[in-house]
Amino acid sequence: MRLLLIGATGTIGSIVHEELKEDAEIITAGIDQADLLVDMTSTESITQMYKQTGTVDAVINTAGIEHYGLLQEMTPEQNQIAVQSKLLGQINLVLLGMDTLSDNGSFTLTTGILMDDPIVKGASAAMANGGIRAFVQTAALELPRGLRINHVSPSILEASVEKNGAMFQGFEPVSAKRVGLAYRKSIMGAQTGKGFYVY
Amino acid sequence: MRLLLIGATGTIGSIVHEELKEDAEIITAGIDQADLLVDMTSTESITQMYKQTGTVDAVINTAGIEHYGLLQEMTPEQNQIAVQSKLLGQINLVLLGMDTLSDNGSFTLTTGILMDDPIVKGASAAMANGGIRAFVQTAALELPRGLRINHVSPSILEASVEKNGAMFQGFEPVSAKRVGLAYRKSIMGAQTGKGFYVY
Repeated sequence: MRLLLIGATGTIGSIVHEELKEDAEIITAGIDQADLLVDMTSTESITQMYKQTGTVDAVINTAGIEHYGLLQEMTPEQNQIAVQSKLLGQINLVLLGMDTLSDNGSFTLTTGILMDDPIVKGASAAMANGGIRAFVQTAALELPRGLRINHVSPSILEASVEKNGAMFQGFEPVSAKRVGLAYRKSIMGAQTGKGFYVY
Repeated sequence: MRLLLIGATGTIGSIVHEELKEDAEIITAGIDQADLLVDMTSTESITQMYKQTGTVDAVINTAGIEHYGLLQEMTPEQNQIAVQSKLLGQINLVLLGMDTLSDNGSFTLTTGILMDDPIVKGASAAMANGGIRAFVQTAALELPRGLRINHVSPSILEASVEKNGAMFQGFEPVSAKRVGLAYRKSIMGAQTGKGFYVY
């Protein structure tokens, strides 16, 4: 099994790598420190990445950035950060990547709890996540050759509490193991069009 | 009561206008045939519109376009149609319009059933609607001065069956009256952060 893991050096990407490294050959991609360099906000860069991967059995994206800020201070330009990265970056990985997947291969995208359990400063992140969830549900109807697509929606990770916990008051941090299992289920299982919620 | 209704001449906009015309002064806005001309894909145009409205008690958007097409044929550029219009157009009406609303005023945005009940060719529309739903839920936490925000999510309208019914197989068409009431509830009621689903 060959997997393409975008965002492999990030917090979640590292978890996915650890979870699956014994079961698959993992090609890593990211803005640095990866087998393949890719800027997910650029369709040209995504296309270039796929030209180098060869056929893979799963594309997993754990990358994507978002602006966290007060609604009253947020500019349309700041909102574009999540639009170009977490929202359109992930969608373009699908639109441009279908031919790279082997029959019955899968896409696994990443959303997050803020679309279900909102916090102050989280409007832009919630937007991107909610958009991906709805996209995934529809895309699953149309993918050819038995291809599948799901998203994993984690709550705040235990490893992120020290850095980001103040914004996530009262959220129950989730373990790396639980997050890794959700990606494993999406990649190795048979379901499609689903969200795997690690809440 | 003074309302700003963007998309007033469209199918849903006309319904909202009919529903509320006895109860409010309605300033219409749109790409043509309106009191104020606005291109919701342009932040400059939105800002210019708000400069001309004076203070209003509600901003209602029923405008926004989307590309309907097969996922396998959809280009990133085609997906941008809904991103710039239905998704970011609506969000920018909020980001740039807070100061235009009177205390306790409201925003009412428009989503749609495809984020909950997907159809072939509907991935881009679903994405935009799902993004707006999540944005609304978070924005409601942060709006100042008692401002409210909701979205109305209609199914296919009876009036649209002749034109679009073939894509919406098995969907129960909804009456103009039900759709109008949902907007009335959002504008005249007290709830915030909600979706009013006309399914």
